[in-house]
Amino acid sequence: MPGVWNLIYELAVFEKEPDAVEVTVEDLERDGFSENPKFEVFVAEISDEIVGIALFYYRYSTWKGPTIHLEDLVVKEAKRGLGIGKSLYNEVMRFAFDKKVRRVEWDVLDWNTNAIDFYEKTGATMLRDWNAVKMYEKALDAYIKKIDG
Amino acid sequence: MPGVWNLIYELAVFEKEPDAVEVTVEDLERDGFSENPKFEVFVAEISDEIVGIALFYYRYSTWKGPTIHLEDLVVKEAKRGLGIGKSLYNEVMRFAFDKKVRRVEWDVLDWNTNAIDFYEKTGATMLRDWNAVKMYEKALDAYIKKIDG
Repeated sequence: MPGVWNLIYELAVFEKEPDAVEVTVEDLERDGFSENPKFEVFVAEISDEIVGIALFYYRYSTWKGPTIHLEDLVVKEAKRGLGIGKSLYNEVMRFAFDKKVRRVEWDVLDWNTNAIDFYEKTGATMLRDWNAVKMYEKALDAYIKKIDG
Repeated sequence: MPGVWNLIYELAVFEKEPDAVEVTVEDLERDGFSENPKFEVFVAEISDEIVGIALFYYRYSTWKGPTIHLEDLVVKEAKRGLGIGKSLYNEVMRFAFDKKVRRVEWDVLDWNTNAIDFYEKTGATMLRDWNAVKMYEKALDAYIKKIDG
């Protein structure tokens, strides 16, 4: 998990939000290796170093039943272009296929055209008319104070 | 769960996709009441009839840890305008607050301005630059055949 955390953090630095990472290595160890793990993760290694991760978990569709959500697919910047991302992506798809889930889902930034082109080539569908809604911690605190005094 | 399923189905009919509901009442009973339930659901009742549901489950943010995802918030059409939807919404927010999750998240269609106005008034943030990506069952089957022959 230290290697997984490093990639999570590297991505946050790249997105200029290093302070946004509140998860610790200990959190990942507890949440990923507990009796009912909160996520699963495939890792790509080169010489014992983790250079790529695909982190995912189950969701539940009221139409389709269990689905797989791909939360993060990250390849270390220095190791891109070697096909590592595609290998990790394929492993997640194989996992979903083996588990017989009826859908795999994830989110992509609409300006990330390289990723979108890749996803569409593999058969995935873009839903462009949906917004992702987030109630963040501070807003949640404020809302609860408002409704419950 | 028969009452929950009825509302799921009513919504699918409203969206002109009744055939999209592959989940059965038995699926909901097994998946919602197992030792490790795949979802939780709050229901609103009038005279012992279920007239509203808020169905949710945990997700996992690699920055924030566990989050709550609100999958479906449905009120029977004949019972709208009574504040049932808001009550269910508030219960989900209270649940998330009590569980100390750092985020509640869900998706909304971008033309559903009434819902968006309501969510924003409660402090939620719209992320309009993300696309939802879905790899559906048939596309997944075809992709696996392609990569694994």
